[in-house]
Amino acid sequence: MVSRQRFFDDDLFLYNAAARVLYSEVRDLPIIDYHCHLDAHKIADNAALDDIGALWLAGDHYKWRAMRLCGVDEYYITGEAPYAQKFRKYAEILPKLAGNPLYYWTHLELQQIFGVNEPLNGDSAARIYAHANKRLQGMHVRDLLQQYKVQYVATTDDPASDLAAHGTYDGTTVAPTFRPDKLFLWEDAYLAQLGKAAGVSVKTLADVLTAVQRRLDFFVTKGCKISDHGMAKLPAAFASESEAQKIFENRKSVSAAQMDALNGFLLVWLSGEYKKRNMLMQLHLAPIRNLNPTMFARLGPDAGFDSIGDAQPLGEAAAFLARVRDEERPLTVVYTLHDGNLAGLAALSGAFRNVRMGAAWW
Amino acid sequence: MVSRQRFFDDDLFLYNAAARVLYSEVRDLPIIDYHCHLDAHKIADNAALDDIGALWLAGDHYKWRAMRLCGVDEYYITGEAPYAQKFRKYAEILPKLAGNPLYYWTHLELQQIFGVNEPLNGDSAARIYAHANKRLQGMHVRDLLQQYKVQYVATTDDPASDLAAHGTYDGTTVAPTFRPDKLFLWEDAYLAQLGKAAGVSVKTLADVLTAVQRRLDFFVTKGCKISDHGMAKLPAAFASESEAQKIFENRKSVSAAQMDALNGFLLVWLSGEYKKRNMLMQLHLAPIRNLNPTMFARLGPDAGFDSIGDAQPLGEAAAFLARVRDEERPLTVVYTLHDGNLAGLAALSGAFRNVRMGAAWW
Amino acid sequence: MVSRQRFFDDDLFLYNAAARVLYSEVRDLPIIDYHCHLDAHKIADNAALDDIGALWLAGDHYKWRAMRLCGVDEYYITGEAPYAQKFRKYAEILPKLAGNPLYYWTHLELQQIFGVNEPLNGDSAARIYAHANKRLQGMHVRDLLQQYKVQYVATTDDPASDLAAHGTYDGTTVAPTFRPDKLFLWEDAYLAQLGKAAGVSVKTLADVLTAVQRRLDFFVTKGCKISDHGMAKLPAAFASESEAQKIFENRKSVSAAQMDALNGFLLVWLSGEYKKRNMLMQLHLAPIRNLNPTMFARLGPDAGFDSIGDAQPLGEAAAFLARVRDEERPLTVVYTLHDGNLAGLAALSGAFRNVRMGAAWW
Repeated sequence: MVSRQRFFDDDLFLYNAAARVLYSEVRDLPIIDYHCHLDAHKIADNAALDDIGALWLAGDHYKWRAMRLCGVDEYYITGEAPYAQKFRKYAEILPKLAGNPLYYWTHLELQQIFGVNEPLNGDSAARIYAHANKRLQGMHVRDLLQQYKVQYVATTDDPASDLAAHGTYDGTTVAPTFRPDKLFLWEDAYLAQLGKAAGVSVKTLADVLTAVQRRLDFFVTKGCKISDHGMAKLPAAFASESEAQKIFENRKSVSAAQMDALNGFLLVWLSGEYKKRNMLMQLHLAPIRNLNPTMFARLGPDAGFDSIGDAQPLGEAAAFLARVRDEERPLTVVYTLHDGNLAGLAALSGAFRNVRMGAAWW
Repeated sequence: MVSRQRFFDDDLFLYNAAARVLYSEVRDLPIIDYHCHLDAHKIADNAALDDIGALWLAGDHYKWRAMRLCGVDEYYITGEAPYAQKFRKYAEILPKLAGNPLYYWTHLELQQIFGVNEPLNGDSAARIYAHANKRLQGMHVRDLLQQYKVQYVATTDDPASDLAAHGTYDGTTVAPTFRPDKLFLWEDAYLAQLGKAAGVSVKTLADVLTAVQRRLDFFVTKGCKISDHGMAKLPAAFASESEAQKIFENRKSVSAAQMDALNGFLLVWLSGEYKKRNMLMQLHLAPIRNLNPTMFARLGPDAGFDSIGDAQPLGEAAAFLARVRDEERPLTVVYTLHDGNLAGLAALSGAFRNVRMGAAWW
Repeated sequence: MVSRQRFFDDDLFLYNAAARVLYSEVRDLPIIDYHCHLDAHKIADNAALDDIGALWLAGDHYKWRAMRLCGVDEYYITGEAPYAQKFRKYAEILPKLAGNPLYYWTHLELQQIFGVNEPLNGDSAARIYAHANKRLQGMHVRDLLQQYKVQYVATTDDPASDLAAHGTYDGTTVAPTFRPDKLFLWEDAYLAQLGKAAGVSVKTLADVLTAVQRRLDFFVTKGCKISDHGMAKLPAAFASESEAQKIFENRKSVSAAQMDALNGFLLVWLSGEYKKRNMLMQLHLAPIRNLNPTMFARLGPDAGFDSIGDAQPLGEAAAFLARVRDEERPLTVVYTLHDGNLAGLAALSGAFRNVRMGAAWW
């Protein structure tokens, strides 16, 4: 239990002497963040900051979701309410979030950025809102990056992205992550967009692969070192290249099992491309997305309506890893949202070289 | 580790100052128990108590199960042994149950009802049995309800039940819970019984639904605010009403998948009926029942031979919740016996309004 | 957190007074080890010891696996490197294993066998290697068994094994465990080997069963009290004996489902044979083996390339247990490698007599 005094001093979460020693070793290190959803353009433009309500609530679907769980009307979440009111509504539910990371993130930001050392709640909301916005006057995005010694951040980017805003700004390198989730849907509109970005007219599977290779090369020139795949589960079948070509040609009419085999081919092929470029492959397993059809129609994706899917079948995970020899495998990091087979997934890293288990991760 | 001294004072489970403060806030509150298996007739009749052996061992299959696990012969569990002997056998195994809730429930009852502040075991059994039975002389069921300030208890009732004993007795409201598990088996004998209770001749699916509506209305007049569904897993398919009618007509010969779709229709339809009546919907997932065929033939259901089934598939749970718009959904509480996907089920409550996750529960 | 001082005194893992009391009760008891992979021949021969590198790294695939995970080249694991170098490589990675049982096993062995009370790492490796090998001069296998008061060890043995080395040696009984995993593969070469061991010409299923009975009787004469079955999951179907005979006759061409039903027959039949001989039946669920095809081709089985399979379906486990009446069931101990349904498997022991849940176990 964190006492009121300790909550707002430097020792939050540091429960004993060993914890304080360990923290003192790392507290002044720079931040290398290999997975974030920051907007590279805002860093490139060094956007001005002015409203903590907008900063916190314009796009953070973690906060939205918590507000919905506490019964807040959607008007104050993604609706037309002014940010001052949205901030107040968030402040009102915050005491209920004790134990949730949001509670600590929020208070740490208030302490470290705004010098606020009291709990945010309905009573303190108006005062803290005015104080924070006053502090934000004249501040810009890169001021925050420098305060936190952010040396490297990897954003999350579609292969067709132009990466126009990536680069190094005042000591912070903003590098892309290659995240080809849309590719695995095999939709014509997306394939055309990808082909356009790559300067390839996409007609065959070989064209798709050529386009992907070109985009990978381009990403590498922008500092990309990692890829990322979000998938409910790994493919369970693996087409040969010639089978994959046939499935691709008939992709409007093939079975789900055939699409899975096409995706199995693609994922194994991509792992080889990553290996050639010394890129890391991240596999994010078990998200299920856009569950609420009413809210999806209204707000689109990434609005807080995703959830945790079933555990990755372990035999299938082993079969995927066995498709590639140890020496041909890129460094592969497996994350899972489902906490029910962490030990099983972690154990796979003992049976195959270059496989690592990350923490459970949204 | 609970010391001998602390075990039998007021501080059991209160390990620090904060725990004692929290407990002092709630200890004098009345009990509102929304899920129990008390017998409403015994409360209505204010039945006399006289034998702690019968009170504890005539029907408590938790205790039966523990005795079986410890190797006690069935004669002393559900057999013809006198209650004094059954009590002694339970007392003899109790020391092995340290860590199991039964151990604490048993000792708390001994302390709070009988003023016994020593461990129950083979040595103390005869003495405690005699002492407890002496105390029980002249006591009645409602004395216990009043001692514990029980304000509201919800029993578990079949839709065809006459609820003859529900009501308010000496300050304790005994309200029914609508638990239509048998309805989902679609057996003629049960449908006839339900129709009789509702005054409906059940020939079509529409007749069934009419009968259910009448019983719901009747339950509401008896103070019912909640429904409860125990099911190994949620339906994975959902018939339309006209499809459901056809499946119902052919219910003797349809496939398991069609029965599942009929049940899917019924569960969604019921959720709408609950919403109209402002009733809460409880979903108890993952029980599997009556596993031991020999003992089922001998003792029937609810004799301690149930267990935990496989985890509810999470995508199917999401698909069920997505059948209903947020505004049309009754307050829905999901419990699961399987501890392997608690996080996944809990996360669904962030993607749909009015969904809550209860603790894992038998 | 274990302090440096406490790590190398007698109190490792004994965090409070109660732990020390409990340990003092058991520390002088003999060891009864009902599951090990010791080599009975080395005990019978009382083999001389001379190199701690060979002792630790010639066959311990737990250590091999940890070394692979830390990036050590296979040359130093199963390759041609001298044991002095293998020992050094293991010592170098050991500090990374803090928290893993290997870390504690290794240091406990150093303390208790070799009197070494300092951490093993790259710096201390050469010194400790020389010291340990000096101590090993003149030591033999049974010296270790006597130092640890090993009264009974059960090795793991194929039914066709001649058990030539089992017996009692200087106070240590070395008994076999009946582990018929190969039988469930129904391969002609193995059946012939089994038949030869039993003196039976194996042509029919009845011949197989006769051979198994003879081997069981032989194992019992060698002190065998337990059987052990490792299987990814329990059979989900159960052939009658006549169906099993037909499947056996067509075993080269039957479906996976039919093989499963044959295995279901065999497992139930075996449980009856165990019961007759008062043998315990161990079920080790959820291993998946030899995942890495490249390394399997190079090193064969049991080289550290196994892993954890999916959770045993609980309804199927219940159906298996329900094949046998409570009185006909041998004492059955279920272990699982998958930690996702421990509660569900454990709960089955409350619904069936003579079923116990062991800890999760590799």
